[in-house]
Amino acid sequence: MTTAHRPAGIHLLADLAGIEAALLVDPDAIDALLREAALAAGARILHSHFHTFGPGLGVTGVLLLAESHISIHTWPEHGFAAADIFMCGDAQPGRALDVIDAALKPATRSVQTMARGQL
Amino acid sequence: MTTAHRPAGIHLLADLAGIEAALLVDPDAIDALLREAALAAGARILHSHFHTFGPGLGVTGVLLLAESHISIHTWPEHGFAAADIFMCGDAQPGRALDVIDAALKPATRSVQTMARGQL
Repeated sequence: MTTAHRPAGIHLLADLAGIEAALLVDPDAIDALLREAALAAGARILHSHFHTFGPGLGVTGVLLLAESHISIHTWPEHGFAAADIFMCGDAQPGRALDVIDAALKPATRSVQTMARGQL
Repeated sequence: MTTAHRPAGIHLLADLAGIEAALLVDPDAIDALLREAALAAGARILHSHFHTFGPGLGVTGVLLLAESHISIHTWPEHGFAAADIFMCGDAQPGRALDVIDAALKPATRSVQTMARGQL
């Protein structure tokens, strides 16, 4: 197995607000959501870990991908989630964001699209 | 324990090029470097995982922090590393980047500083 992908990709930073708190507290549900998002993007999952700060509190976690990563940090008390989706190769990070958006249904969102590895 | 930090922070995206390949292949050394970087920034480490694509090949990994995360993806065959450092609260992401820079000594670097959670 090799790194396979050139060191260039797209990194989406998505700030998602106005989300129902109940959608932001379950680490297993968020793990499953990000796995669904990664697969929709055509990415290969290497590792996942999701930490809960306690019952009803935020979750912070990451999927490591052969194509880079998806992370999420949630603040249910603010109805807020910060996701980032970094993918190299032929994976489609926008498709991952679509899956996350459809599940969390934020009232407002701000997405910044950054090119990586252009040096 | 609570989430503790407001949903606002600084996210640094650092593309680092012209790095000696030997510095980009050892997952244990990169784990140790990112831990040193996190502590320099005043962050609290929750979890770490570093994956190697094989001997002499790239490493992809993450530290999950109480303040968000540090990730790195390396391409030794290109002398390249893509790091991102996202920290909320009082942690100082720039100090973490200084530690990474001092260890990897990139010939060139491009750092994008993004404000998160301003919705």
